[in-house]
Amino acid sequence: MKKKMNVEELLAKATKPNADAMRLHPFYRGKLEVSPKCRIKDYDDFAIWYTPGVAAPCLDIKKNPEKVFEHTNKGNFVAIISDGSRVLGLGDIGPHAALPVMEGKAIIFKYLGGVDAFPVCVGTKDTEEIIKFCKQIEPTFGGINLEDIAKPKCFTILDRLRAEMNIPVWHDDQQGTAAITLAGLINALKVVGKSRKDVLISMIGAGASNIAISRMMITAGFPAENIIMVDTQGILHKGRKDLDTPGNETKWKMCLNSNREGRTGGIPEAIKGTHVCVALSTPGPGVIKKEWIATMEKDAIVFVCANPVPEIWPWEAEEAGARIVATGRSDFPNQVNNSLGFPGIFRGALDIAAKTITDEMCIAAAEELAKCAEDKGLSEQYIIPSMSEWDIFPREAVAVAMKGIEQGVARIVKTKEELYDHAYKIIKRSQEMVTAHMKDGFVLMGEE
Amino acid sequence: MKKKMNVEELLAKATKPNADAMRLHPFYRGKLEVSPKCRIKDYDDFAIWYTPGVAAPCLDIKKNPEKVFEHTNKGNFVAIISDGSRVLGLGDIGPHAALPVMEGKAIIFKYLGGVDAFPVCVGTKDTEEIIKFCKQIEPTFGGINLEDIAKPKCFTILDRLRAEMNIPVWHDDQQGTAAITLAGLINALKVVGKSRKDVLISMIGAGASNIAISRMMITAGFPAENIIMVDTQGILHKGRKDLDTPGNETKWKMCLNSNREGRTGGIPEAIKGTHVCVALSTPGPGVIKKEWIATMEKDAIVFVCANPVPEIWPWEAEEAGARIVATGRSDFPNQVNNSLGFPGIFRGALDIAAKTITDEMCIAAAEELAKCAEDKGLSEQYIIPSMSEWDIFPREAVAVAMKGIEQGVARIVKTKEELYDHAYKIIKRSQEMVTAHMKDGFVLMGEE
Repeated sequence: MKKKMNVEELLAKATKPNADAMRLHPFYRGKLEVSPKCRIKDYDDFAIWYTPGVAAPCLDIKKNPEKVFEHTNKGNFVAIISDGSRVLGLGDIGPHAALPVMEGKAIIFKYLGGVDAFPVCVGTKDTEEIIKFCKQIEPTFGGINLEDIAKPKCFTILDRLRAEMNIPVWHDDQQGTAAITLAGLINALKVVGKSRKDVLISMIGAGASNIAISRMMITAGFPAENIIMVDTQGILHKGRKDLDTPGNETKWKMCLNSNREGRTGGIPEAIKGTHVCVALSTPGPGVIKKEWIATMEKDAIVFVCANPVPEIWPWEAEEAGARIVATGRSDFPNQVNNSLGFPGIFRGALDIAAKTITDEMCIAAAEELAKCAEDKGLSEQYIIPSMSEWDIFPREAVAVAMKGIEQGVARIVKTKEELYDHAYKIIKRSQEMVTAHMKDGFVLMGEE
Repeated sequence: MKKKMNVEELLAKATKPNADAMRLHPFYRGKLEVSPKCRIKDYDDFAIWYTPGVAAPCLDIKKNPEKVFEHTNKGNFVAIISDGSRVLGLGDIGPHAALPVMEGKAIIFKYLGGVDAFPVCVGTKDTEEIIKFCKQIEPTFGGINLEDIAKPKCFTILDRLRAEMNIPVWHDDQQGTAAITLAGLINALKVVGKSRKDVLISMIGAGASNIAISRMMITAGFPAENIIMVDTQGILHKGRKDLDTPGNETKWKMCLNSNREGRTGGIPEAIKGTHVCVALSTPGPGVIKKEWIATMEKDAIVFVCANPVPEIWPWEAEEAGARIVATGRSDFPNQVNNSLGFPGIFRGALDIAAKTITDEMCIAAAEELAKCAEDKGLSEQYIIPSMSEWDIFPREAVAVAMKGIEQGVARIVKTKEELYDHAYKIIKRSQEMVTAHMKDGFVLMGEE
């Protein structure tokens, strides 16, 4: 464990990126551009790409709607849709102020996944209008990434769109966080030599992320009754009649299915005697106390993923007996980082022109991501790769695509080798293009 | 005049681009991509472009909404919006089948104007829903280009959005065609030595384009009463009570203000004795007869712009006495080509973060475009530049931007020199980047 820092020191580390961002955003005036990816050898080529030549592919799509994936970039376009109602830790800052985040997400999509993601900040906060908007924008896109939308509408929007649209719809705070957390958890269990079906798990927080994590864990073989989840009112159990109410269906289902011991109480009661603690609740430190971690089983696994400061300092958790600690921060080991997931998962989904991304496809990504780290050698300090290990992305893509083909949600069927080859090449091309642009002066460096 | 061709021969010339398009669209699987335009020198840079650094520009925009133009690419993003209800000459082929056209338009925007245009095909054909959709998508975009939307809804949508939005909204079939036609007309009058206020003008067709052309001509100094317009029911005049009806307000206004002689009848009666004929009606040939052109004044100017075949063959119009003939085709002299306009006009509007594009800004572009040709030497065969003369685009941009500044619709004020320098560089960069991508193998050539 690195040397101890206090809140001020840790927060201060964010000052440099903030200052760089304030200097460099106006330097570039935008982080994204739109470019031709077809040849333009001379002006005559426009007769192919526009009128009169373009009429032929148009009519071909009219006759065979699925050909839109062949004649256009729909199959590689993803809309990053946000109403700006819950941006990072900044709250409801609105769609204009959210745009720098969505542009940032788009460059990560491209650089790590070869995905042409485009930011679409919408000027409405109404649930039904956002749903309608996403459906209306479908013709251009092969997938939709919902981003930074407040709860509870983010649940409704995701569930409705997944049910009603025929392209993948994704909310990174739900499926994305769940997949990466699951990958870390799978490897943590390998390190401590425990099995999914035996461990008792406390989950601190019942927001979008932890709800999605619990759902995916259960699908992946963690028994629901071994989970003890805590929301702001205490542990979820069958007596929580406050949750047997409209709008709380998901939590009420947890009350009925989880917590076989019927525990009641708060965070300390939930944590006691569990093997694993997964917290995505309130920025710390001090949200989870050292003495509570000390009540966990031997070789405890602790995921404390609140941002920007974890619910308990990693060194405190270790001093209290935790064997493995994961956080959301890049300056501690075992960062649970969403950027490890969505670029590869979408790559795989797009390469089969998937109609949806199932939970099983996310789990396949998580298992493959876990394997990537395992291949390099697991330890308490390394249960999950970092995003610079970019071979993880084509591997995830293949796992996701193969699962999608198996589950019958693929419009395009390819072999494992074809999938890997394509994913590898398109991601490599993205990264090399960025390098070439900097070398050739199309993108300046923006130094002081 | 080039050698005579028959309809079959002319249409056959479109076969090659169609065949190339059917081969090359699936080769590229899309004509557009989305790329980072900021540096990514290592993975640490993501801390500037995404969390935690990005929070600072977000909060800056929240505090000062206009800073969205500084911290994001909003100021260079244009949405190309279509419901696919009237695509090229193909009719209502729907939003998916329209996507190849919108991608094609986007690459022209980028290559000739340095504009990051993004295709947004919408899955609704309802006028009010399209209006709402365009408003909802505003946070991301600095401008909206409506494309291939059927009339009469295209009028309502354009008028409403121009009135109700604070970014430029453009319908190329209206303002775009009008600006280029006006440029050609201005130069044609110079060649024959006639003045705007004296010429009598017949206009064949009263669709979106001709209505917009007449409006812009009137604003540019052509007296309304000198225009004689014909729709499918005959000449527009005060007795056309069929047009004094809801939905026909624009045409009825023309009935009241144009045609000072009170002519009645059809196309031949409209054309007789006029100095200029502007036809945007039905594909020919034979829509306008040789003997009708013969009744025009000496040194007649004839714009026959129906696609793919003009209302009368250019050589027939010349044999009947026309001194200058313009068409919509690239294989005849004097092509009235919309691609000469929108890339430069949007370049200028975006560079001042304009709140709208006024008709006066379009006229400024037309005057400048006319001057570009004049500078090289006008003749009967050269009243308008071709799109390979790419210096026209920064020149138009400056004219548009300066007029916008003068009219008070600019959010950003710059000097003429700054505007030219920026427009020149950004367009040059676009074209050089395409060349570099082909050279470096990021874009393959797709040969047989």
